[in-house]
Amino acid sequence: MAQGQGDYRILHEAALRDYLAGIADLAATLGGEPASWSITEVGDGNLNLVFIVEGARGGVAVKQALPYVRLVGESWPLPLSRAHYEFLALSRQAQLAPGLVPALLHHNEALALTVMELLEPHIIMRKGMVAGTRYPRFVDDITTFMARTLFFTSDLALSAAEKKQGIAAFAGNHALCKITEDLIFTDPYRIAEQNRWTAPYLDALAASLRDDMELHVAISRLKLKFMASPEALIHGDLHTGSIMVTDSQTRVIDPEFAFYGPIGFDVGAVLANLLMAYFASAGHERSPGERRAFEAWVLETIEKLWNEFARKFLDLWRTGAAGDAYPPSLFAGEKGAARLEAERQAYMQRLFADAVGFAAAKTIRRIFGLAHNIDFELIEDPRRRAVSEARAVRLARTMMLEPEAFPTIADVTAAARKLRDWQPEFATG
Amino acid sequence: MAQGQGDYRILHEAALRDYLAGIADLAATLGGEPASWSITEVGDGNLNLVFIVEGARGGVAVKQALPYVRLVGESWPLPLSRAHYEFLALSRQAQLAPGLVPALLHHNEALALTVMELLEPHIIMRKGMVAGTRYPRFVDDITTFMARTLFFTSDLALSAAEKKQGIAAFAGNHALCKITEDLIFTDPYRIAEQNRWTAPYLDALAASLRDDMELHVAISRLKLKFMASPEALIHGDLHTGSIMVTDSQTRVIDPEFAFYGPIGFDVGAVLANLLMAYFASAGHERSPGERRAFEAWVLETIEKLWNEFARKFLDLWRTGAAGDAYPPSLFAGEKGAARLEAERQAYMQRLFADAVGFAAAKTIRRIFGLAHNIDFELIEDPRRRAVSEARAVRLARTMMLEPEAFPTIADVTAAARKLRDWQPEFATG
Repeated sequence: MAQGQGDYRILHEAALRDYLAGIADLAATLGGEPASWSITEVGDGNLNLVFIVEGARGGVAVKQALPYVRLVGESWPLPLSRAHYEFLALSRQAQLAPGLVPALLHHNEALALTVMELLEPHIIMRKGMVAGTRYPRFVDDITTFMARTLFFTSDLALSAAEKKQGIAAFAGNHALCKITEDLIFTDPYRIAEQNRWTAPYLDALAASLRDDMELHVAISRLKLKFMASPEALIHGDLHTGSIMVTDSQTRVIDPEFAFYGPIGFDVGAVLANLLMAYFASAGHERSPGERRAFEAWVLETIEKLWNEFARKFLDLWRTGAAGDAYPPSLFAGEKGAARLEAERQAYMQRLFADAVGFAAAKTIRRIFGLAHNIDFELIEDPRRRAVSEARAVRLARTMMLEPEAFPTIADVTAAARKLRDWQPEFATG
Repeated sequence: MAQGQGDYRILHEAALRDYLAGIADLAATLGGEPASWSITEVGDGNLNLVFIVEGARGGVAVKQALPYVRLVGESWPLPLSRAHYEFLALSRQAQLAPGLVPALLHHNEALALTVMELLEPHIIMRKGMVAGTRYPRFVDDITTFMARTLFFTSDLALSAAEKKQGIAAFAGNHALCKITEDLIFTDPYRIAEQNRWTAPYLDALAASLRDDMELHVAISRLKLKFMASPEALIHGDLHTGSIMVTDSQTRVIDPEFAFYGPIGFDVGAVLANLLMAYFASAGHERSPGERRAFEAWVLETIEKLWNEFARKFLDLWRTGAAGDAYPPSLFAGEKGAARLEAERQAYMQRLFADAVGFAAAKTIRRIFGLAHNIDFELIEDPRRRAVSEARAVRLARTMMLEPEAFPTIADVTAAARKLRDWQPEFATG
């Protein structure tokens, strides 16, 4: 939003200390003398400054948007308004999925700055998965987060008027949507300066994606669905780098890409990132088979992820359908109830097909686009990395072109399991 | 919008005369002394006041929104803001389809009042069709209107950012959308006080629609598509009562239901109203077969309507695709061009299936819902009227439940032709 944008300035350490000291609640939370607070910049994301501030009594996390893409620099400007949308989404998620997002402590629209609960000792889930750590709470928490935030912002729960208000409230976040439209749905399939991949091993595969017109139609259909299917308020960037975990807690962070989009995009994002963690795992082995138990957990998690999400989403629909879609008055009586239940199952089947397609798109962009992930990047030997990546791409390609070949989540995990030891041939290898 | 709504007052004849006299441009257009202007209220629609004002030099049409639904009365309030959205849509349509909407002369947001070119000697197309009149310009004009207004506000022509701006600009028109959601997509399929139909002949058919759970699923899917598929800026009420014609001119009026919705809704509206005119025609015969030539023209018009619309829409796509969907860079070279062209055809096929479903919904609501149309209503003998209506409903039901049974528009006209002389049996007849 425009208000007070003239007052924006980047708060580095000293200025941030003064700023926080001036806000009584935050100063009290931190405790002790402001001069004694430790302030550390920890932003490892692609867009923002993130500081951890710790005082005598406690700590907070401070996130400030920069007027450009951090990963690229000032040559790629990006509106500060994204902090507004992130704040808006976080507030809504906090209502809908309490305890599953960081508590909001302070927001300054002009500075594009938000202060949140310090998540400690949580770590970015992706890092834990690279290390082979299992997270027993993850499936239950993330499926609750998805089912509740997606169901309660959909036409199944809202009146059409409320829904349209929501869509309009996030319509201004188009610059962030554009990043997704370009980096996920377009660039990996054409020559683009920012693309990169594990060369030379994946050169031929990259070229084949650029030449595959069936894939270009499939990704274009997914892009159109992303742009013009405001099904619910989606997180918009729900990968394992946006999830912080401990053994007993899960927190979803960074919803700055939030807008009203297709439900399958969020579900597909989680699926894709678990699949990538699975395929990357072999690359992190120090001895053959060392991580098989972890890998079995990942596949089991993938299956539970969809099954639990579907179960919770359906339960909400059965008990909390106050929205304008599928009005109860059209499905009265036993016959109506039975037919509506069949339609609910059909709705979930369509949603699953969407999720399969979006998961494929999210996988391919991490291997051939601008933004990669540490699941693969931390595999030091490039040939080994390329092997893991090629397996993931092979599955993703089939998922995007033939989503009907995966009627259930077990079909996805079965296909992944089959590819676990597949040895791709590299023309240059 | 909210601005100046406190200044709203209903302008009846005397007040309207003073108001127009105070606006120099309009007074000059009308010419002569204000006291000599003839002012006639002609609104035969369901929602607004419409005046024709004629002076010594020329005439204008004045439309003012009432704060309630005219057809029902003050018990059904309706926001004045619809005049804002109508003005916004009309302005956009005038840019995109010049000469196919009335020229805008004046708009007063606070009064919810718009002054437009007086369309003369145009008549409401529906009235002409009841009389059996053929309109040689109609197909070419309406398909140009639809192709241009729908294509140029879609993701095929707009950037995602422009598209989201457009969606947001019309999001506030939800009260008008709600009328459609209730009256077209819900009420005809359940007991609702405002429903009516040609009793007693259609009593059993009305009951069967209320009991048909397959139909309830189909109409609910269409409703969800209407609510959550912002494909383009649609007119939203494109029936033959919103089209004014002469032998040589066509003007589309009354876009107060405009918002970003599914393209197939507009196309289906025109289709449905031509189909209803076709089935009503037999009811207007004074001697058997008297209107066969008119009926043949209607069926031919239905076929051309889709074929010409599709041709023009595709031509725009081939030459004017500046939007973010289906980026040209993904379809380079001969192979890319061929694959994209095949996808364009597939896109039109999906759009046609939507139009078939929406046409069915638009038909059923006119026979069992609140708002009927004179095609059927002017058939005085209720049994004869019921026969025409039952034929239309029989086709509509199949179109809604089995859109795949109508792969081409010729399948629709063939099915209509087959039903032309079908004699329904009425339990009470």
